[in-house]
Amino acid sequence: MQEYKFKPIGYVRTKADTLPRHWSVSDVEGEIVIEPEYKLGLRDIKAGDKIVVIFCFHKSPAFSPEKLIQKPPHLNETRGVFSTCSPHRPNPIGLSVLEVLAVEDNIIKVRRLDMYDGTPVLDIKPYIEYRPYGG
Amino acid sequence: MQEYKFKPIGYVRTKADTLPRHWSVSDVEGEIVIEPEYKLGLRDIKAGDKIVVIFCFHKSPAFSPEKLIQKPPHLNETRGVFSTCSPHRPNPIGLSVLEVLAVEDNIIKVRRLDMYDGTPVLDIKPYIEYRPYGG
Repeated sequence: MQEYKFKPIGYVRTKADTLPRHWSVSDVEGEIVIEPEYKLGLRDIKAGDKIVVIFCFHKSPAFSPEKLIQKPPHLNETRGVFSTCSPHRPNPIGLSVLEVLAVEDNIIKVRRLDMYDGTPVLDIKPYIEYRPYGG
Repeated sequence: MQEYKFKPIGYVRTKADTLPRHWSVSDVEGEIVIEPEYKLGLRDIKAGDKIVVIFCFHKSPAFSPEKLIQKPPHLNETRGVFSTCSPHRPNPIGLSVLEVLAVEDNIIKVRRLDMYDGTPVLDIKPYIEYRPYGG
């Protein structure tokens, strides 16, 4: 089966050494430092925006089949891995929706961080809310 | 710089040969066929769920710097690539929020498809809406 390879476009920088489990309950602040070659692509990101950050759970061990079912820390029952946000997943890809505080040069200052310092960032996209048809 | 490698967990299957530009305006139906080894991880996905599907824009040519600024088809002005959903991005990673119609064995039937037949799927996550603090 074919593999797909990605290089980080940047890295997370934060002083926090403990982190909430999920961006939806986080008020941690930090920065996303983008490689200078991609800086121009940040031109239209501004304070107040919500951005989708796709990153690599770079500290996760290799996936093994017993992780197909997991008990999330905030639940008393188990869930199939694709119904969880666990960092232990077949491809260790994470997604957080962060709030932009400022953009300075090649650095995005953000709130709601739930990633460790040094986390490799693979992509940034605008956040688009799901709406019913005609909504 | 380190590279990160991912293997598809499955593939998109659809009969549509033209596709809307974005899941938010799509009513195309199709299937995500998951590799049998990951089938157990689908256990808690059910009809009516919204799922975040992370996939590879496998037909995109290699990224080049003139794509750091692009004109989205639905806009009359340009945008920095990280404020667009363009398939031409430093890492060709896509994200769609799809509606689950049914799950049968290792196949998820979905609506709102905006990916080509054969698109490699890298991850599936629950859709979690952004809410203000205390919201």
